[in-house]
Amino acid sequence: MSEAAHTLILLRHGESDWNAKNLFTGWVDVDLTDKGRAEAVRAGELMAAEQLLPDVLHTSLLRRAITTAHTALDVADRHWIPVHRSWRLNERHYGALQGLDKAATREKYGEEQFMLWRRSFDTPPPPIDDDNEFSQAGDPRYADLGDEMPRTECLKDVIARMLPYWESGIVPDLRAGRTVLVAAHGNSLRALVKHLDGISDDDIVGLNIPTGIPLLYELDADLRPVTAGGRYLDPDAAAAAIEQVANQGKK
Amino acid sequence: MSEAAHTLILLRHGESDWNAKNLFTGWVDVDLTDKGRAEAVRAGELMAAEQLLPDVLHTSLLRRAITTAHTALDVADRHWIPVHRSWRLNERHYGALQGLDKAATREKYGEEQFMLWRRSFDTPPPPIDDDNEFSQAGDPRYADLGDEMPRTECLKDVIARMLPYWESGIVPDLRAGRTVLVAAHGNSLRALVKHLDGISDDDIVGLNIPTGIPLLYELDADLRPVTAGGRYLDPDAAAAAIEQVANQGKK
Repeated sequence: MSEAAHTLILLRHGESDWNAKNLFTGWVDVDLTDKGRAEAVRAGELMAAEQLLPDVLHTSLLRRAITTAHTALDVADRHWIPVHRSWRLNERHYGALQGLDKAATREKYGEEQFMLWRRSFDTPPPPIDDDNEFSQAGDPRYADLGDEMPRTECLKDVIARMLPYWESGIVPDLRAGRTVLVAAHGNSLRALVKHLDGISDDDIVGLNIPTGIPLLYELDADLRPVTAGGRYLDPDAAAAAIEQVANQGKK
Repeated sequence: MSEAAHTLILLRHGESDWNAKNLFTGWVDVDLTDKGRAEAVRAGELMAAEQLLPDVLHTSLLRRAITTAHTALDVADRHWIPVHRSWRLNERHYGALQGLDKAATREKYGEEQFMLWRRSFDTPPPPIDDDNEFSQAGDPRYADLGDEMPRTECLKDVIARMLPYWESGIVPDLRAGRTVLVAAHGNSLRALVKHLDGISDDDIVGLNIPTGIPLLYELDADLRPVTAGGRYLDPDAAAAAIEQVANQGKK
């Protein structure tokens, strides 16, 4: 077994307004629910209890990840650590599905198309129109993206835009010996886990990451996980939540 | 009259637990009160109402400034901007006074000594012992400071450690055309205002900055204020609060 050289903590944001309403969210910048805020507090307590104290934070540009991180770090007394934000850690852009009800979409398009959009590795949903109310075309935070600004994404696209930030933004912090917290989203974290654990394009389809439970990866000197899949700081809650995520969109 | 070239917004944190209890706080990392959180929300609303939208945030390493900024920026839909933190924006270190009741201190040492410690430009309070419960000697966030770690400070000391960050951290953002938000503390902001407005060592003694009200400085190409003293986004509330700050420590 290889030796732990680096400490990486992944944290999916707590429950959001649109998680609760069962809507496709993607890049729409919704807030946390009260339950989501409580999950963020609990995440901070879990990190503090194990003395897994981040030295640096990387987040997406979306409020649900930013507030989850702020809340968890405040609870763990690590609110003062340096912060780096990148659109490359954003949730998958859900294209024209953004704002649609998951159960209604499943009903309208059928189970096969629904699961293809939700979980296919390389089939993105239809792109969103720039004048759609849930488009980010005019959002100032993405003004500098130019042609890189997505209008829809599949998981393969997320991996392609996330990995450059992993390499240039996060790995240097790990190599410098820092405990790194990445506060992000279901699909940007699936992309990262796929990379870390070397999960195949087929197998990643079945992997879900629950909200608000820190996932610890100890990495060896080659940045390979010492334990495949890492370790949730609350394994029982993670197992229960993973089951629930898998059932999203079912009535 | 010179022309506005740069936009700087100063924001003192909202009311803290120890503001409310009338204790000397300094580097003790207390939380906001509910009133303080409401002030932070209001600060965000004021910035949004005038479309004074920060492109970058600079904060201290203290929770009351960090949470005020997070809250205000979230309300103004600017939670996603880059963040830089520095101990050089911290509140004045109050030395051995940290944790003491202001009114009791006034009573014990008399008005003259009290005002000297509170407001003298160049007389620091006695230094705090490293084993005092309110010392920051073992705090990991200051582990790299070495000899620069203060055990007490007068305003002159705050200016000396704040100005290098102004020059190297904040001015480059202003020169790059960014609207800069500095979320900090009564004395680190007094230090900055003294520098910007060229206030004398004697006159700065009488200047108070209220909690939670954004203070706008439009600066010319030479980084001099277009309007001396800047402009509070809620001038009436600022005037009332300044009066109240001046009365702190009185019974």
